[in-house]
Amino acid sequence: MAGESPPANRRVKTVDNLAIEQLARLALEEDLRSGDLSTEASVAGGTHAAGHAVAKSDMTCCGGALFGATFRCLDPRVSFEGLTAEGDSVRSGQVLWKVSGDARALLSAERAALNLAQIATGVATQTRRYVDALPRGSKTRIVDTRKTTPGLRLLQRYAVRVGGGHNHRDNLGAAVLLKENHIRAAGGIEAAIRAARQHAPHTSKIEIEVTDLDELASALDARAEIVMLDNFSDEDVERAVTQAKGRALLEVSGGITLERIPRLAAAGVDVISIGALTHSAPAADISFLLR
Amino acid sequence: MAGESPPANRRVKTVDNLAIEQLARLALEEDLRSGDLSTEASVAGGTHAAGHAVAKSDMTCCGGALFGATFRCLDPRVSFEGLTAEGDSVRSGQVLWKVSGDARALLSAERAALNLAQIATGVATQTRRYVDALPRGSKTRIVDTRKTTPGLRLLQRYAVRVGGGHNHRDNLGAAVLLKENHIRAAGGIEAAIRAARQHAPHTSKIEIEVTDLDELASALDARAEIVMLDNFSDEDVERAVTQAKGRALLEVSGGITLERIPRLAAAGVDVISIGALTHSAPAADISFLLR
Amino acid sequence: MAGESPPANRRVKTVDNLAIEQLARLALEEDLRSGDLSTEASVAGGTHAAGHAVAKSDMTCCGGALFGATFRCLDPRVSFEGLTAEGDSVRSGQVLWKVSGDARALLSAERAALNLAQIATGVATQTRRYVDALPRGSKTRIVDTRKTTPGLRLLQRYAVRVGGGHNHRDNLGAAVLLKENHIRAAGGIEAAIRAARQHAPHTSKIEIEVTDLDELASALDARAEIVMLDNFSDEDVERAVTQAKGRALLEVSGGITLERIPRLAAAGVDVISIGALTHSAPAADISFLLR
Amino acid sequence: MAGESPPANRRVKTVDNLAIEQLARLALEEDLRSGDLSTEASVAGGTHAAGHAVAKSDMTCCGGALFGATFRCLDPRVSFEGLTAEGDSVRSGQVLWKVSGDARALLSAERAALNLAQIATGVATQTRRYVDALPRGSKTRIVDTRKTTPGLRLLQRYAVRVGGGHNHRDNLGAAVLLKENHIRAAGGIEAAIRAARQHAPHTSKIEIEVTDLDELASALDARAEIVMLDNFSDEDVERAVTQAKGRALLEVSGGITLERIPRLAAAGVDVISIGALTHSAPAADISFLLR
Amino acid sequence: MAGESPPANRRVKTVDNLAIEQLARLALEEDLRSGDLSTEASVAGGTHAAGHAVAKSDMTCCGGALFGATFRCLDPRVSFEGLTAEGDSVRSGQVLWKVSGDARALLSAERAALNLAQIATGVATQTRRYVDALPRGSKTRIVDTRKTTPGLRLLQRYAVRVGGGHNHRDNLGAAVLLKENHIRAAGGIEAAIRAARQHAPHTSKIEIEVTDLDELASALDARAEIVMLDNFSDEDVERAVTQAKGRALLEVSGGITLERIPRLAAAGVDVISIGALTHSAPAADISFLLR
Amino acid sequence: MAGESPPANRRVKTVDNLAIEQLARLALEEDLRSGDLSTEASVAGGTHAAGHAVAKSDMTCCGGALFGATFRCLDPRVSFEGLTAEGDSVRSGQVLWKVSGDARALLSAERAALNLAQIATGVATQTRRYVDALPRGSKTRIVDTRKTTPGLRLLQRYAVRVGGGHNHRDNLGAAVLLKENHIRAAGGIEAAIRAARQHAPHTSKIEIEVTDLDELASALDARAEIVMLDNFSDEDVERAVTQAKGRALLEVSGGITLERIPRLAAAGVDVISIGALTHSAPAADISFLLR
Repeated sequence: MAGESPPANRRVKTVDNLAIEQLARLALEEDLRSGDLSTEASVAGGTHAAGHAVAKSDMTCCGGALFGATFRCLDPRVSFEGLTAEGDSVRSGQVLWKVSGDARALLSAERAALNLAQIATGVATQTRRYVDALPRGSKTRIVDTRKTTPGLRLLQRYAVRVGGGHNHRDNLGAAVLLKENHIRAAGGIEAAIRAARQHAPHTSKIEIEVTDLDELASALDARAEIVMLDNFSDEDVERAVTQAKGRALLEVSGGITLERIPRLAAAGVDVISIGALTHSAPAADISFLLR
Repeated sequence: MAGESPPANRRVKTVDNLAIEQLARLALEEDLRSGDLSTEASVAGGTHAAGHAVAKSDMTCCGGALFGATFRCLDPRVSFEGLTAEGDSVRSGQVLWKVSGDARALLSAERAALNLAQIATGVATQTRRYVDALPRGSKTRIVDTRKTTPGLRLLQRYAVRVGGGHNHRDNLGAAVLLKENHIRAAGGIEAAIRAARQHAPHTSKIEIEVTDLDELASALDARAEIVMLDNFSDEDVERAVTQAKGRALLEVSGGITLERIPRLAAAGVDVISIGALTHSAPAADISFLLR
Repeated sequence: MAGESPPANRRVKTVDNLAIEQLARLALEEDLRSGDLSTEASVAGGTHAAGHAVAKSDMTCCGGALFGATFRCLDPRVSFEGLTAEGDSVRSGQVLWKVSGDARALLSAERAALNLAQIATGVATQTRRYVDALPRGSKTRIVDTRKTTPGLRLLQRYAVRVGGGHNHRDNLGAAVLLKENHIRAAGGIEAAIRAARQHAPHTSKIEIEVTDLDELASALDARAEIVMLDNFSDEDVERAVTQAKGRALLEVSGGITLERIPRLAAAGVDVISIGALTHSAPAADISFLLR
Repeated sequence: MAGESPPANRRVKTVDNLAIEQLARLALEEDLRSGDLSTEASVAGGTHAAGHAVAKSDMTCCGGALFGATFRCLDPRVSFEGLTAEGDSVRSGQVLWKVSGDARALLSAERAALNLAQIATGVATQTRRYVDALPRGSKTRIVDTRKTTPGLRLLQRYAVRVGGGHNHRDNLGAAVLLKENHIRAAGGIEAAIRAARQHAPHTSKIEIEVTDLDELASALDARAEIVMLDNFSDEDVERAVTQAKGRALLEVSGGITLERIPRLAAAGVDVISIGALTHSAPAADISFLLR
Repeated sequence: MAGESPPANRRVKTVDNLAIEQLARLALEEDLRSGDLSTEASVAGGTHAAGHAVAKSDMTCCGGALFGATFRCLDPRVSFEGLTAEGDSVRSGQVLWKVSGDARALLSAERAALNLAQIATGVATQTRRYVDALPRGSKTRIVDTRKTTPGLRLLQRYAVRVGGGHNHRDNLGAAVLLKENHIRAAGGIEAAIRAARQHAPHTSKIEIEVTDLDELASALDARAEIVMLDNFSDEDVERAVTQAKGRALLEVSGGITLERIPRLAAAGVDVISIGALTHSAPAADISFLLR
Repeated sequence: MAGESPPANRRVKTVDNLAIEQLARLALEEDLRSGDLSTEASVAGGTHAAGHAVAKSDMTCCGGALFGATFRCLDPRVSFEGLTAEGDSVRSGQVLWKVSGDARALLSAERAALNLAQIATGVATQTRRYVDALPRGSKTRIVDTRKTTPGLRLLQRYAVRVGGGHNHRDNLGAAVLLKENHIRAAGGIEAAIRAARQHAPHTSKIEIEVTDLDELASALDARAEIVMLDNFSDEDVERAVTQAKGRALLEVSGGITLERIPRLAAAGVDVISIGALTHSAPAADISFLLR
């Protein structure tokens, strides 16, 4: 699968105009629906200002276009300049993005723009840590899950890619993943896979979750195309790789820590999926300085 | 101000029906807009099931009504039972909530319901840690900020209250907080406060941010009702309390850690505001087990 | 509090781009969702026209940017020119605003644009009448209420400020106002104030409604920061001011007429709140003439 | 045309479920999007209460279902009882509607529910005054215009009917009304009517606005089905009726006052359209008393 | 009524900006809400491309502005050129519209833009076939119905006009059409017409559906302004025209085929309404070629 | 792949509550936003009625739950009874569904409910015709495309499954399909497949479009998992199957007619995708009879 890093500008498409506008609007409406008492009171209309966003710690930069668009959503005359590319590793103190325009717009949109950019950069930074833990040249993918923040899935999945990770399925209609309850309801691994193959679009691979090596054997016999090894120990993961012999993609999930990544990758699993990339990434510490 | 814990059922109102429905819908639409391939394929219509949510670590329970409502938003016949009250401290292994009804609805809404509940409980748990660091009987408030996740501010603020914290202003139109740029634009601390008092509703106190003790003196002279001590050292906070002599509420902000809480509270500040309550609270680890 | 009129351009921020666009869209969609039969039939595409809005009576001008934006929402090439500033007192016959562009866009958006501008100017004009009834140099504020038209609160509150008035709290979550039923439920004035202080953000003053001078005494003892004198006679208002001795802001509400304003202001109340500023302001009479 | 009053329950359909729900939600979201600080602080969950809406002056009752639905939108368990029928003339002091249920829901939704009901009843009451000014047995209709509050057209048109009036076209796509600018663009009265007849659905009558008796003659010659006499004096209206000889419906518009109604009706015009029914109806004075 | 074809640019107004934007957004969001995996993977950002839409069969061109706007909704820098006017008859192989700009935007929006344009052109083409079946110089109108695709009524009605047809009422509130159930509920044809005339705006003609010549007689006696002859044979239509003697417009509906059009038109009916114009028009076959 | 028909109740999940409500609302709002003049005028409130939907030709029944929900969306007290199961083949004259309740609700929602049900049944019926053309026991799938009606993709894809067909990818983010322009931009078939595999979630198979047998060879060499044979003749399809030897799923697309289905299936292709299932399915002829 993956491995050699392709040029970032090719793999990482920025989230599209429609999505950017929706997210910026969501953040602004929540914060500004009754105006901005402090700015209205203290800043005269027509004042010009310029601001820049600065990294307050080391981070993997993400969300620049969205940051700029949030200000421009409030006032289309604000100009935006990106000093870093999406996915750049930046040091604490480095300037990420600049905006200039009406001082009221800059002050009123600052928090909304930062909230979005800090989430995006936080996820990218978290992802990069896991990706960097992979052995050099590894073909193993670091992958997100559906454990995302409601309303922000598109942004968080984008940030995972910016951080060098990959995406799992976007939603319940985009791909098949048969878990324990599906298997039981269908009457077993083989029956569940057969039903899913029959029901799902022919474009989807069939993934199934197994909890031990016996179930893995059943899943391989039933020609699952991906098998998720749920909460396997490192040793069992190694046994699973040996047992699978490449007949299916193997995905490791559950209880993943940074420390386990090298051994799991060395074992030869194809995919390591990690909910914490999105559900528990701390916000990146970015300041906005205005002159 | 605060201090002695009032009965939880009085202070902590659950987010209202309208908000619950909106959040549940948001989460479900993102995950289910193209159906649920795995469940449709493997679970026959009309199958009944029951599931329960279990804490996988110690946590402060939050979001039960929202958890239940997410399933019922997909199928109104699902029944919900809360085994814990909002704000309860629960141990790893404890059952939080039960749902029962159509197996398809339970499986399809599971992730959306959990994502919401894990965020709410994560924020409540994070808040409780800071609140518990206060000296017994302290009157100091632990307070959130506007550093919330776009779209989830209402839920996160509710979770802060459930965790024993208090809320800062909800949005830029709800109260005045004059920061450095406002002050500079208005022509100084006294001018900024005068302008804000003139502009703002008479129901708002005027809060102003200061960066040293001289500015604090100016703010007190100008009769600010709340002064935010921005990035003050513990020593300077203590000096500020002495200097203020109760003429204004004092809020400490910036660089707050759990370790600093006891000394800051002992110093007698009224409010400690902490962005990390909402922007960097890890999701609570809650499992959903289905039978 | 208020009094000497600050420069209008400082206090009165125009409603922001997001809000303007939403209001324009709301009005246009209601009127144009099935097209415009008359204009489509009679006006050839590509015809150019220019129109101007004229005051048909004396009024306080408000809503110019929104008026222009409504046409531009239908056709972004329409140009807009404001001949009056927000808050200007204009005479019958005076031209307020000019638009020019595609004749079809001007004709189709005319009614929607006028409906919005007439409401805004109506509220500003109504407010100005009350403000002008204040004695010269008075520090008393004329203030709106939550008795606004659903969907138009932001616009109406803006118009109140344009007319020289001030705003009360924006919504039920922005500030505390304890009324009779809250007091009874909490177990009395003192208990209600204590509960509110405990629950509300520290940025909110606590306001409480009283119906006689005894209740006022209780409210002052409980350190309410604002007391609303509900349906007090002029004499009782005067007694209340004497009794309060500046310990709380006093707000008069209920049964306010233009005639009572001078005496109430002379008595020294801080705030006079008037539902009729928004709920019963007649639309301003503005004509749109097209060439 | 109209005249003898048909049974109210036949002519006046209540606005439908979809519309009621949308309006209630609009009003509630504006007021409650950050919660209700006062009620949350002072009223314990689970408290039961009952409230009733009382007329504080004479009025024509309108909006009962919407009033009740607003509370139920916040809490579906609230019960509603209507003591008056839509369109009933009620005296000051009379109870209109009762609700009972959770005290928090009643307190939090009170203002939103009242704002809507006061607008509806205000329009119905205003309309009834004009309708009552018609001579007994008159066939003349009192009719609204498109000068409505953005977002509330459906409700205001309903209230006009409840007050005994009739509706003009709902929007620009529902019927043809050729005004001065359409006529000039089309090249004259006859050309405008021909173009409109060609363009419009065959279900629409063609209405055209004239400013003098000569234009009326042209409009009749061109077989306009309705002619709007714009700002005609009473005398000219009488001449117009004589001239038209029933060849077209005649609608009088512009500068209508209550005093002119009897003479205009006696002259035999078919329709009197009045913007003030909706754009300048004062809110009805309704109180909500809670126990 | 109709007949001699008026210049297309006068009768056929393009759907307005608001509607175009809404439709484009609807189509794009459905297709692109999780990004575009294929384009993101294979096309580098910044690649320029140009595409043109080509008719793959003979058709009546419709929807050009909407086609272009869909691409521009994704990327405002895309340029659009229309090589055909709305309503032009084009031959298979002819180029209709050109777009150029960012290759990713062109590829990602292609399907959404085509889906809309193919529906619009399909309806226009279908309509033109019926219109062309009218005898030369006929005054009979080909008219649509409310049997439209939910969400697309505005577009489909526009396409009917582009194809040379006319529109029936837009929705249930725009005009009166009394069908069998209304008549029965009202107590007969005469009572139903009287009730409708009383209730409806004076701008609406009253249309009523009849199933035989006796009912036609009753409808004419009650002065219906339009009578719909429901499922009449050609012979009965001819008798109806004779019987009506121009006292009402006659509309034929039900079981209309292309073959019947000449005879029905020759019989002198005013309107032929055909659900199949919108509910069963096959999509036009248009290709999009990209370089 | 497919072939032996699995029990319908297992494969065909009805569209979920959220989707049904959204579609019903969309259709009702378009038709009823200004009320229903005819019904309001002629039907007294409180009248009870019952109606049933009858097939006017042979069809494959689809959309029953949505049909009922549309009435209930207007009035929740309407009851619904389904006399046919989704996917049933019904004869002309057969009753499909029954509703009963308030006569006004039945009359006002009738058209909206029928429009939706006729589209759903139309697509299911069209699909069934293609599925029935497959040889008995064939493993070939009849599959839809993204050529759906904007706003109705979810419903149309459901209807395809109800008709016995299968779905292709739901949207551009759900799966990879590399077309000519992607291939050219990426620098050839092999490069495009490599880039897609690198970018796409590991759950997606990679599909690529080829225009001749040479390209097919390249695609197979590059290990495409699905190859779309674009506009291949029947002979070339047969050669492609021989050449592929099961190394990839083969999908035939372009110029598919009912007549070609048996030979294509016999050739052994896995998938036949047909835009006409959704973009050109005529509405099913269903009548609604009311008593």
